[in-house]
Amino acid sequence: MPELRKSPIIERWVIISTERGKRPLDFKMEKRPSRGGFCPFCNGNEDKTPPEVLAYRDPLTAPNTPGWKVRVVPNKFPALQIEGDLDKRGDGIYDIMRGVGAHEVLIESPDHSKNIHHLPKEHIESILWALRDRCIDLKKDSRFRYILIFKNWGEEAGASLEHSHMQLIATPIIPKRAIEELEGAKFHYNLKERCIFCDILKHEIREQKRVISMNDHFIAIAPFASRFPFESWILPREHVSAFEKTTADWFPSLAEILKSVLARLEAVLDAPPFNFIIHTAPCKTPDLDYYHWHLEIMPKLTKVAGFEWGSGFYINPTPPEDAAEALRNVDLTCGETNAQLQQKVEEQR
Amino acid sequence: MPELRKSPIIERWVIISTERGKRPLDFKMEKRPSRGGFCPFCNGNEDKTPPEVLAYRDPLTAPNTPGWKVRVVPNKFPALQIEGDLDKRGDGIYDIMRGVGAHEVLIESPDHSKNIHHLPKEHIESILWALRDRCIDLKKDSRFRYILIFKNWGEEAGASLEHSHMQLIATPIIPKRAIEELEGAKFHYNLKERCIFCDILKHEIREQKRVISMNDHFIAIAPFASRFPFESWILPREHVSAFEKTTADWFPSLAEILKSVLARLEAVLDAPPFNFIIHTAPCKTPDLDYYHWHLEIMPKLTKVAGFEWGSGFYINPTPPEDAAEALRNVDLTCGETNAQLQQKVEEQR
Repeated sequence: MPELRKSPIIERWVIISTERGKRPLDFKMEKRPSRGGFCPFCNGNEDKTPPEVLAYRDPLTAPNTPGWKVRVVPNKFPALQIEGDLDKRGDGIYDIMRGVGAHEVLIESPDHSKNIHHLPKEHIESILWALRDRCIDLKKDSRFRYILIFKNWGEEAGASLEHSHMQLIATPIIPKRAIEELEGAKFHYNLKERCIFCDILKHEIREQKRVISMNDHFIAIAPFASRFPFESWILPREHVSAFEKTTADWFPSLAEILKSVLARLEAVLDAPPFNFIIHTAPCKTPDLDYYHWHLEIMPKLTKVAGFEWGSGFYINPTPPEDAAEALRNVDLTCGETNAQLQQKVEEQR
Repeated sequence: MPELRKSPIIERWVIISTERGKRPLDFKMEKRPSRGGFCPFCNGNEDKTPPEVLAYRDPLTAPNTPGWKVRVVPNKFPALQIEGDLDKRGDGIYDIMRGVGAHEVLIESPDHSKNIHHLPKEHIESILWALRDRCIDLKKDSRFRYILIFKNWGEEAGASLEHSHMQLIATPIIPKRAIEELEGAKFHYNLKERCIFCDILKHEIREQKRVISMNDHFIAIAPFASRFPFESWILPREHVSAFEKTTADWFPSLAEILKSVLARLEAVLDAPPFNFIIHTAPCKTPDLDYYHWHLEIMPKLTKVAGFEWGSGFYINPTPPEDAAEALRNVDLTCGETNAQLQQKVEEQR
């Protein structure tokens, strides 16, 4: 059973995932990870994953057979396990609980060769709907406090399988980074009675220089204090605190802007490895006036990880204004043109 | 001039280092970093670095010529710049200041092929003395609030040059991670009137299972809530809040344990890339009863960086007890034997 252990010094919990049980020798072997060959996420290999918890599929096909468009399955090597209670306890001076949670994988399409933004807009919309469905379902479990939704793409970004997928982890604690963001946003709200994210997006639309892309319901920006080169955030233009509470008819806009931003990053940076994370309100909270869900995309370009992990101090060699300009200037045949974007930005000023 | 920008949401400052000016094209080219060839840190190439600020060298030799053992020079591509004042200001809703600071490189030896733990113990002691000297000198500058001391080794850990070196960055703000640790430790002290780190080391000596190595003045442990496989901390066994205030005659013990732990990691993990960071009290503070300096070593073995950067949520597949056992069982001809360590641990119980 995996364990959740709390740092005795700061408010940080760590999953010690003994089930994945890596021994010293495994790390030696890991130096040359093998690629290619058999893929459990491909069409026809449905029996090589745990049984699906959700699939959008041809109604004439049976579960766990071909005929699906988007498929969600439990992770075969879960960081947290679904059974049992938390059993919170002390161990001398330390705090510990059982690693109870859910760890699911969303397989974005049966096509091994396509990343999410290579799919048609309508397909991306289905993926987002599947995420929303799983979110709503997982939030019903009273043991869970937060649903982490993220994507690792490319080996350098930590993806262990090549076939494009996303992950959902339901945790019995709220991750440190989420707490910090919630508290920071609450502080701003208490001071000014305004959502900090709403303030940011108004400011950025006025200033224009950090805007990457925009449509009816969403905006993509390079954030003012970007930690990483080409860090990109997507935010709903109206206030919504939780991802799954996004108005249904905004989903086409969300699919469009996600496709646009990822395609721009691919064009400018030559298909970089990347991570994205949905930052959303915790479980068991009502609609929050002070918090605003958003999606943070981090291309993995620099390798200063360990130092910055340890210090919390980031050195970013690319000003976000330069990154936004380069991304904005990509001419995407599939999306809005620069002239259209320019016009939209002008309209908002 | 680099800029320091504050996140409007959380207490995080980022250095936007325009001087290092990476444009989109640079990232494309960076995919195949070139190694080998000319090295500015090697013996005879002293004129290829900025002039030295400190060197331990043969007294018959001139500055910036061969004949040195340890050498400290300003970073040729500094993240922060030494001249000028901070010019703190707002930019609409954002906070910003000039990127004033110091960024120095400590070249550990003239020998290109040796990592720090391959050097004789006395040489490592000289390196630690040089760090202490630079710390004391930088702390005299009233603009600086924190001295970050760290080492990146190996390309995967962010080292841009192969020749083994360390870095010192003096910053006009206290890094977020340091603030969190100071506040967490203060909270514990206010509650219990004891230093949390002193509590940890007593507990670990009693429990034994996470002890890696120990000598007269220092202990190395795999911390209870390790974020990374084989994360290793070195702490002074008596309470000292700042690195540079460590008693002079403890330096041989510190050199010994640092050599021992790094040699153990090399033996078990096949010379992994790693980072280490000295966690120490900020500038302008008296001796702190609640904080205890220490050194955190993070081998770079897993690649789940982006997700964990973004969420603050760590998944560690190797229990620290297993890591400590593997490291403890390494038979180092150069250091203490396992039997000697066992005896020491038994004596303390």
